[in-house]
Amino acid sequence: MIPITPIRLTVDCVVFGLDDTDLKVLLIRRGIEPFLGSWALPGGFVLPAESVEDAARRELEEEAGVREVFLEQLFTFGEVERDPRGRVVTVAYYALVNLHDHPLTAATDADDVGWFALEDLPALAFDHDEILRVAAERLRGKVRYQPIGFELLPEKFTLSQLQGLYEKVLDRTLDKRNFRRKVLAMGILIDLDEIQQDVAHRAARLYRFDENLYRQRTERGFNFEL
Amino acid sequence: MIPITPIRLTVDCVVFGLDDTDLKVLLIRRGIEPFLGSWALPGGFVLPAESVEDAARRELEEEAGVREVFLEQLFTFGEVERDPRGRVVTVAYYALVNLHDHPLTAATDADDVGWFALEDLPALAFDHDEILRVAAERLRGKVRYQPIGFELLPEKFTLSQLQGLYEKVLDRTLDKRNFRRKVLAMGILIDLDEIQQDVAHRAARLYRFDENLYRQRTERGFNFEL
Repeated sequence: MIPITPIRLTVDCVVFGLDDTDLKVLLIRRGIEPFLGSWALPGGFVLPAESVEDAARRELEEEAGVREVFLEQLFTFGEVERDPRGRVVTVAYYALVNLHDHPLTAATDADDVGWFALEDLPALAFDHDEILRVAAERLRGKVRYQPIGFELLPEKFTLSQLQGLYEKVLDRTLDKRNFRRKVLAMGILIDLDEIQQDVAHRAARLYRFDENLYRQRTERGFNFEL
Repeated sequence: MIPITPIRLTVDCVVFGLDDTDLKVLLIRRGIEPFLGSWALPGGFVLPAESVEDAARRELEEEAGVREVFLEQLFTFGEVERDPRGRVVTVAYYALVNLHDHPLTAATDADDVGWFALEDLPALAFDHDEILRVAAERLRGKVRYQPIGFELLPEKFTLSQLQGLYEKVLDRTLDKRNFRRKVLAMGILIDLDEIQQDVAHRAARLYRFDENLYRQRTERGFNFEL
């Protein structure tokens, strides 16, 4: 006989978004104990009839109003003492949200929800600061070798916006000329032959990332690197 | 009140080893139902008083006699129907074992244990073929950008052994001259000024990977790539 071990399973989601100034993360304010009133990652218990990933998507929608976004499993945090309620193991996910085209609605389950700059976070409940640290490290590592950064941009973007994304995620300044040359040489962007509308500065050309071009090039041995 | 969800938590371990001919994986033959008599990854239920990673290390030792090896979390498999016993979520790990310096002892808990070439595997229990596929993909992706491959080699190795490792993991032939030039240019190997003993062919120089050199170089912006 296999005992039902008294281990409970939760999901937690690190949702990244990018605005004109910062890389941001979505937090909810807890409406129940423990850590009542503290800011925390959206998440909750996995239900018996749903997959772990479905639980993450459900919690994202219920607590933060986030739907149909890029979502990837991050890491499972399984230390014995990580939750004051007893033995709770959490499977963490990270999501990338395009704040430009899909501004978020208010949360339903949570008391309050807000976007915080990664550089200026409040104290977090549980081990959520550690989960967030691991997520930011994953994002920084992955954005250079896989085209996931485009998930944070509007569908049509300028090369300055793309460069800004990399500068904010990697937290360093990039040379404009080099960056553009490298990006365009990859041959995975489509020049839309359009320019920005309603901007104060000189309107720039708009591009979009082409998933099919990327796949075709990858099959022929191309490695994305920025 | 928080219900104890009837979800049970296991760990499963993909143990890779390298011999002169193949990249191999360690399997155990199941002594209990379900899948009695089938080959499977070593693993088992997480105990309430141990961390998830400790559970993986315990199962590796109990079932496969593997101790003190490189072990890293791979992915958590959380589909609803993945285990005929009911709702069981498994946290998968992968381990890299140096078969040259540490030949394994026989298993204790398992009926039988064996090394199988990745190219010639038996049918596996549960979704273990899927877990193994994800592990092999991770190894192939990671070995190029992080110096984890050295875990599969003896402490002192020849450049031919190192090249063989990359050829077996990546499943392609590499140009000898280019490979050596690239490896030595990284400046993370120590030439031991020794040659192989007791080999039939012409004895080759021995090297070792230097973790400190690697860290120092990485801090100065070096990126491992092979």
